[in-house]
Amino acid sequence: MSTSRLEAFADGVFAIAATLLILNVQTSGSPLGQALLNIWPSYVAYAVSFISIGIIWVNHHTVMNQIAHVDRRFLLLSVLFLMLIAFIPFPTRLLAEHIVAPEGAQAAALSYGATLTLTAILFNAIWRYAAHNRRLLKPNADARVVEGINRSYLPGPFIYFGATLVAFINPLASAGLYAAIAAFYVLESSLFSRR
Amino acid sequence: MSTSRLEAFADGVFAIAATLLILNVQTSGSPLGQALLNIWPSYVAYAVSFISIGIIWVNHHTVMNQIAHVDRRFLLLSVLFLMLIAFIPFPTRLLAEHIVAPEGAQAAALSYGATLTLTAILFNAIWRYAAHNRRLLKPNADARVVEGINRSYLPGPFIYFGATLVAFINPLASAGLYAAIAAFYVLESSLFSRR
Amino acid sequence: MSTSRLEAFADGVFAIAATLLILNVQTSGSPLGQALLNIWPSYVAYAVSFISIGIIWVNHHTVMNQIAHVDRRFLLLSVLFLMLIAFIPFPTRLLAEHIVAPEGAQAAALSYGATLTLTAILFNAIWRYAAHNRRLLKPNADARVVEGINRSYLPGPFIYFGATLVAFINPLASAGLYAAIAAFYVLESSLFSRR
Amino acid sequence: MSTSRLEAFADGVFAIAATLLILNVQTSGSPLGQALLNIWPSYVAYAVSFISIGIIWVNHHTVMNQIAHVDRRFLLLSVLFLMLIAFIPFPTRLLAEHIVAPEGAQAAALSYGATLTLTAILFNAIWRYAAHNRRLLKPNADARVVEGINRSYLPGPFIYFGATLVAFINPLASAGLYAAIAAFYVLESSLFSRR
Repeated sequence: MSTSRLEAFADGVFAIAATLLILNVQTSGSPLGQALLNIWPSYVAYAVSFISIGIIWVNHHTVMNQIAHVDRRFLLLSVLFLMLIAFIPFPTRLLAEHIVAPEGAQAAALSYGATLTLTAILFNAIWRYAAHNRRLLKPNADARVVEGINRSYLPGPFIYFGATLVAFINPLASAGLYAAIAAFYVLESSLFSRR
Repeated sequence: MSTSRLEAFADGVFAIAATLLILNVQTSGSPLGQALLNIWPSYVAYAVSFISIGIIWVNHHTVMNQIAHVDRRFLLLSVLFLMLIAFIPFPTRLLAEHIVAPEGAQAAALSYGATLTLTAILFNAIWRYAAHNRRLLKPNADARVVEGINRSYLPGPFIYFGATLVAFINPLASAGLYAAIAAFYVLESSLFSRR
Repeated sequence: MSTSRLEAFADGVFAIAATLLILNVQTSGSPLGQALLNIWPSYVAYAVSFISIGIIWVNHHTVMNQIAHVDRRFLLLSVLFLMLIAFIPFPTRLLAEHIVAPEGAQAAALSYGATLTLTAILFNAIWRYAAHNRRLLKPNADARVVEGINRSYLPGPFIYFGATLVAFINPLASAGLYAAIAAFYVLESSLFSRR
Repeated sequence: MSTSRLEAFADGVFAIAATLLILNVQTSGSPLGQALLNIWPSYVAYAVSFISIGIIWVNHHTVMNQIAHVDRRFLLLSVLFLMLIAFIPFPTRLLAEHIVAPEGAQAAALSYGATLTLTAILFNAIWRYAAHNRRLLKPNADARVVEGINRSYLPGPFIYFGATLVAFINPLASAGLYAAIAAFYVLESSLFSRR
């Protein structure tokens, strides 16, 4: 199978998962103005998850750009990876509804962190499966680029796992870290990227 | 990254955000015929938001047609822009449910206007980032076309911001202006466009 | 703008509108087995709308295959057309919930028919705008094919309008006609189509 | 019609149906931590359906890769097939909510199995329609590959029908078989696939 069919399916899942996040933003109670202010965690959770999915999408294309073809194992790893991407709206809603609620903040922060940690692990698994002995890479894939991707994606699971552990001490701090990770990637790309 | 991958992702978000709008159209109460008439603001809000997203989609392609390649900053700006596009269903529902309700019309009109104003600002930011010193433009991009896009997209944020401010005085008038803006773009294209 | 971008957006809206139909299939009450039998109108409505959207999608591509390029008016007509496609899940739910209910069958059948009639009108408008004086057609578009499309799409609005009018007398008969129209197109293609 | 348009539409339906599965994962009750543990069948059902859709998607492309062009009958068979794919989220929710509930486990397992059995039947119908006398196949389609597809897809309907029948004796065992079928395909591809 060519990579383009996988990219089309993956782009679909990324776009739908990101766009479905809006279904989690809901108000109740009145007056409406006050209700809209009260759900500020929903806006933050929406933005953090949308941007996180967006960053993973950008990185997914960096990976796919190095890949010449895909095999069935790679496809199935990709399905598992996309299964986690499509799962993100659920813990996002938990976080939005519970992070400042009297109850459930810890469980919400843990499930958000667990989802993102697993996503980062599978992202690394996809890349390493493809790059192992240059199994699926383009013949002309630059060794330094490959090495650079190796290095830049490796910390992801550890960073998210660390932020998840923080939820055992302080769920709000953990949620803040998830936002900070997304903000860091945006700022890093904005400030330091050379084209 | 080629522009085609970004276009595929953006097309997905545009299409999904527009199609999700229908989830906001809901009836309750009986008789059904009366209930269907009572929710006329839902139909208007659905149409205005669908057409507005459609117009932004058309304009987004006008922009992408001038662009030769994208860099990480442009991608992240695009993710932020699409985050606002995907947000539109939420204030659309607020407007549909509250604009003729005894309470919440002002808050609904303000949130709709704020979302569209921010969307228009980010649309300009994307274009200006790409066009600044012709950073991402195609080598053969026509200077007059570039200048024309510069000029035609600049008023957008101001028009939406103005319509938003009207909500402080009269929310229904503000909602009427959002509809009028969409209608204006449709009519302008229908009546005055050459080819 | 090339036709491929419009096709990608349209395919997205078609696919999403069709897939969202499943959100209308819902049970309540127990025992579950009985509840699942009771909602048989939901399955029929799901199938009729999915197949109708599928047929319109097939026909939309027949049209797009004859078209060389698109202009802004055609794009805006297409946005209005897709706005109606994306609206279909709403009257589908009305039909599913009310057609055998003690109340609302007529209003549900009328809104379903009105939506499909308007969709068929806009489908004809799109085609006729493109085909008028061969405005947007490919230079090599076969005159007999063009004439054939002209003839085969013209009855659509009248057929749906007629089925809609039946709802004033017998809503269930009207719903049966919507199903029969979809079944007719499937059978016609299955039995009579060459290649 | 070229196969690429059908693939784009099919990819959209596959991606949306898979991503909508997350809407079935919902909690209620407190404490949240306990509620999240209680809905473990939702996670299993989500994973099984997502992976099943993913496997069908992979196989659908294996089929499409052998096909040179499509006719109207093939398109309509594909619409019916996609109608079943898009239906999967509904029995998935039934299974998630009822498989360990005091009531409804059998009805849920039967509807899940019936949906997957019908999907497998239509998948075979699509392939056999295309492969019959090499009707729609590429001129250079390898006879052994065609024969291999014939053989490997044939058992699908029988396996799912068998697992469905088990629900009359033990619904939970039936649900376990659905999970086992998905796991088998993943493992088979992971362990035994060449290239």
